[in-house]
Amino acid sequence: MSGIQVRNPRFEQVVRDSFAQQGLMTTFRARLTAVEAGRVEITVPFHAGLDQQHGLFHGGVTTAIVDSACGYSALTLMAAGSEVLTVEFKINLFAPAQGEQLIARGRVVRAGRTITVCQGDAFAVKDGVETHCATMVATMMRIESAL
Amino acid sequence: MSGIQVRNPRFEQVVRDSFAQQGLMTTFRARLTAVEAGRVEITVPFHAGLDQQHGLFHGGVTTAIVDSACGYSALTLMAAGSEVLTVEFKINLFAPAQGEQLIARGRVVRAGRTITVCQGDAFAVKDGVETHCATMVATMMRIESAL
Amino acid sequence: MSGIQVRNPRFEQVVRDSFAQQGLMTTFRARLTAVEAGRVEITVPFHAGLDQQHGLFHGGVTTAIVDSACGYSALTLMAAGSEVLTVEFKINLFAPAQGEQLIARGRVVRAGRTITVCQGDAFAVKDGVETHCATMVATMMRIESAL
Amino acid sequence: MSGIQVRNPRFEQVVRDSFAQQGLMTTFRARLTAVEAGRVEITVPFHAGLDQQHGLFHGGVTTAIVDSACGYSALTLMAAGSEVLTVEFKINLFAPAQGEQLIARGRVVRAGRTITVCQGDAFAVKDGVETHCATMVATMMRIESAL
Repeated sequence: MSGIQVRNPRFEQVVRDSFAQQGLMTTFRARLTAVEAGRVEITVPFHAGLDQQHGLFHGGVTTAIVDSACGYSALTLMAAGSEVLTVEFKINLFAPAQGEQLIARGRVVRAGRTITVCQGDAFAVKDGVETHCATMVATMMRIESAL
Repeated sequence: MSGIQVRNPRFEQVVRDSFAQQGLMTTFRARLTAVEAGRVEITVPFHAGLDQQHGLFHGGVTTAIVDSACGYSALTLMAAGSEVLTVEFKINLFAPAQGEQLIARGRVVRAGRTITVCQGDAFAVKDGVETHCATMVATMMRIESAL
Repeated sequence: MSGIQVRNPRFEQVVRDSFAQQGLMTTFRARLTAVEAGRVEITVPFHAGLDQQHGLFHGGVTTAIVDSACGYSALTLMAAGSEVLTVEFKINLFAPAQGEQLIARGRVVRAGRTITVCQGDAFAVKDGVETHCATMVATMMRIESAL
Repeated sequence: MSGIQVRNPRFEQVVRDSFAQQGLMTTFRARLTAVEAGRVEITVPFHAGLDQQHGLFHGGVTTAIVDSACGYSALTLMAAGSEVLTVEFKINLFAPAQGEQLIARGRVVRAGRTITVCQGDAFAVKDGVETHCATMVATMMRIESAL
């Protein structure tokens, strides 16, 4: 992304505070493993409560953390007092999400006044080796917190 | 959908057996509330482990159950010995998923030899009233179980 | 769609005026065959300048007219002085677009203040019989004309 | 993309022959400006027959050439005797497509036996300066030519 502009120097705290309030991320034992301007990474360790019928990470887990990584990457570039809504996203799941952990990386492609477009990817880590298993494009919308 | 053809009369059992093996659906306390030829419904009761930062159902929950309802609706029309993979989907989230339960309804739009296209919708139920909160289009692929 | 509200009684003229200015629709020989509140239909006759390598309608034609039908369906429900932008869409193309004409039908699923979600479908007409060949979900945004 | 494998050394000719048969690409005056293993570029000069209501490139043009660039990038990696079908795609249009030409660049993200996932981007060139105006993720399917 060209032309990254940070409007709120406290963006990391804003992201961490919001993330900490999400019950689903606690259920997933998800952690914010990177929060930078325009980029966020979320990591989830494997446990049986997150699997599908063959013992892999469920696509719903992959999707939820890539969406969150995208949304929070958008939030890092928004002014104080903003919140971010997912308008929509599309995800392609092209390799089994198998391994000891799953990493989602989201980044801003285009930050507009109202709409921010993000891309995100998921990587399964098995025996320490990352496999790219999904890619997302997401549309995020800024709203005022007071809403 | 026109031209629904059931290839496996035991489709309901196939769907219920697969669903029962998904740890994530247990974590969500999700139930299969309808399994018909070309249509599947999944219902999730609200609990704090599924929420986002404002106490609503997390978009990741909505997405996971609509994706599952779509995938299983595709599976109802497949021959015995088939499994279904989500190739990709796109979801628009357009109303807050607030209420005592969340219902996902998936249906087959077009069943091909390899590719099945599905649509799905999510409805939040608050005080017994349903609100349409999301819509999905998903691409499913049939694979042989032996794979 | 529930709760359709018409804010500009001249919506049909607004749609027809905008459509008439699109060079691409002229190139396609496309016509607006229905303009109702929340629903728009566009029809294109087959000609060789619109085909792909096997003499069918090119997917780019299908996509362009379904996108336009969706966008104009959104515009029918907007206040005077509005314009509509396509934020994004997703389309599944699941049957050959073969025949003497191609029909796109777009409709509003959810009309919000800023964002309107639409669905659209394409039908190829061969020997007078319609075949459903594609489905779209699109995100439209309202902007002020003065922009 | 990791692990690019060329199965047909004549891939460039296959792509150029198919492209030359598409009436829509002729209508658009589109040219194949790059054909490499896993990457294809298509360029279209502006003319009034391609515009929308404000004289910019119509989103339908942008979409059609990015879809084609993606599909042909997939075809470059397929065995002789293959054809490529667009199963679906999603595109975000985030900047006006204004200028003397429009460039679409498609690339393979993941090439599987049946399904290939591609990404594509569009750039408007105005006074020689490229502006990134759209991004696509597309799902392509390989079929045998004899079909």
